[in-house]
Amino acid sequence: MEKPLILVTNDDGITAPGLRALIRTMKELGDVVVVAPDSPQSGMGHAITVDSTLFSKQVVVDHKEGAPSEYSCSGTPADCVKLALRVILDRTPDICVSGINHGSNSSINVIYSGTMSAAIEAGIEGIPAIGFSLCDYSWDANFEPALESVKKIVSEALTNGIPKGTVLNVNIPKTKNRPKGIKICRQARGNWKEKFDKRTSPSGKDYYWLTGEFELLDKGEDTDEWALAQGYVSVVPTQFDLTAHHAIQQVNNWNLNEQ
Amino acid sequence: MEKPLILVTNDDGITAPGLRALIRTMKELGDVVVVAPDSPQSGMGHAITVDSTLFSKQVVVDHKEGAPSEYSCSGTPADCVKLALRVILDRTPDICVSGINHGSNSSINVIYSGTMSAAIEAGIEGIPAIGFSLCDYSWDANFEPALESVKKIVSEALTNGIPKGTVLNVNIPKTKNRPKGIKICRQARGNWKEKFDKRTSPSGKDYYWLTGEFELLDKGEDTDEWALAQGYVSVVPTQFDLTAHHAIQQVNNWNLNEQ
Repeated sequence: MEKPLILVTNDDGITAPGLRALIRTMKELGDVVVVAPDSPQSGMGHAITVDSTLFSKQVVVDHKEGAPSEYSCSGTPADCVKLALRVILDRTPDICVSGINHGSNSSINVIYSGTMSAAIEAGIEGIPAIGFSLCDYSWDANFEPALESVKKIVSEALTNGIPKGTVLNVNIPKTKNRPKGIKICRQARGNWKEKFDKRTSPSGKDYYWLTGEFELLDKGEDTDEWALAQGYVSVVPTQFDLTAHHAIQQVNNWNLNEQ
Repeated sequence: MEKPLILVTNDDGITAPGLRALIRTMKELGDVVVVAPDSPQSGMGHAITVDSTLFSKQVVVDHKEGAPSEYSCSGTPADCVKLALRVILDRTPDICVSGINHGSNSSINVIYSGTMSAAIEAGIEGIPAIGFSLCDYSWDANFEPALESVKKIVSEALTNGIPKGTVLNVNIPKTKNRPKGIKICRQARGNWKEKFDKRTSPSGKDYYWLTGEFELLDKGEDTDEWALAQGYVSVVPTQFDLTAHHAIQQVNNWNLNEQ
């Protein structure tokens, strides 16, 4: 039987330890092709490269533990998926996995996430897709305790398929040993209380650094934030039909079509 | 009575004719403050500037028809909204409007839209927000036939409020005269059939230009694409809770927690 074809990408760039750990784990499940940004793309949201050239080349990052087929791309995570599907791959992948991101993409962070934009891009094309993130921003984060869950989730997705019109947003707590288990969750309500650190350049120009703190606004025990705080892996089925169907009725009562 | 405070932004940049038309129209409804990118940011999705400096300065673009208070910002549309709310404005705006974008943000385009990312950023902060787009990509598009609908929608939003957790994605057909009316819609299912135009640089490096055609995969007569094709303005209530609640039950039946 033909092994499943697994497209692997991320937003931290092709040399990121999180990506390399994901490649090692995916090689246990199928044939792996990597198409990933040549440099970090964090905070890029669902950006695509429309008015600029896109470079891509086959590369070898790691002779021993890398994938047989790896490509770096000058674009965003969404560009990588588009390029993989339209130019690089000669058959449709059975699944697309993105990550493992260095840092959380739970709650409202999904909106800003390059990791998830790659998964969503594949999902739009009808390909089962999952974004993985570890709640540890450091470059030398320990991905080992996460890998068993990653493998289990991808394996179940290959067996069961992913519900149509959805992709999975998986976040993994920072733990010394394996997480407590895996919980299917909803996206917690939360936002960022930004602070702008104002400075002045040597030439006298004011500029800002964006910093801030995440604020959880949701006491539910069925959210991704709750699961992560309890030491569980969170899995949120995430959709790209952004319609707030429940709000249509309300807006329909506005006086929009009177003269 | 105090006039409503209206924050205006966009993704085509502070000099874009679509933004200037929106400013003129909003001045009829309230006090306008503009915080917009200093250069075009199309296709930026919900990007934010995390590892780079952000410059912002007060500017005068148009003495006669501009707003009394305008700021340009070196960042993305989402950055502009964050900076406006945290640094520039001294009170919370009553509404945030983004656009008018030069080009459609209907159907799946909402995912890639910088115009909508600004509106969503404001929505996350609990501020009523609307993104406006005209289905005409040209820089010298005629915004005049759109302005009556824009004013009506903002005016109704100021009167009624926008349902909690949603922002409005408004698309306006390219018409000679006024559109036929305004329809509340759902996001049509569709995607892009990308083509990558492969070329070779003078130094022998391969590169690509991303092009493609939109493919509508939805025959519904309640979608934004349908309304626009019939000459109506489409209004889609759009949400930033991306949870596919209907899919949770299905994924809950996977064997994720067996040893």
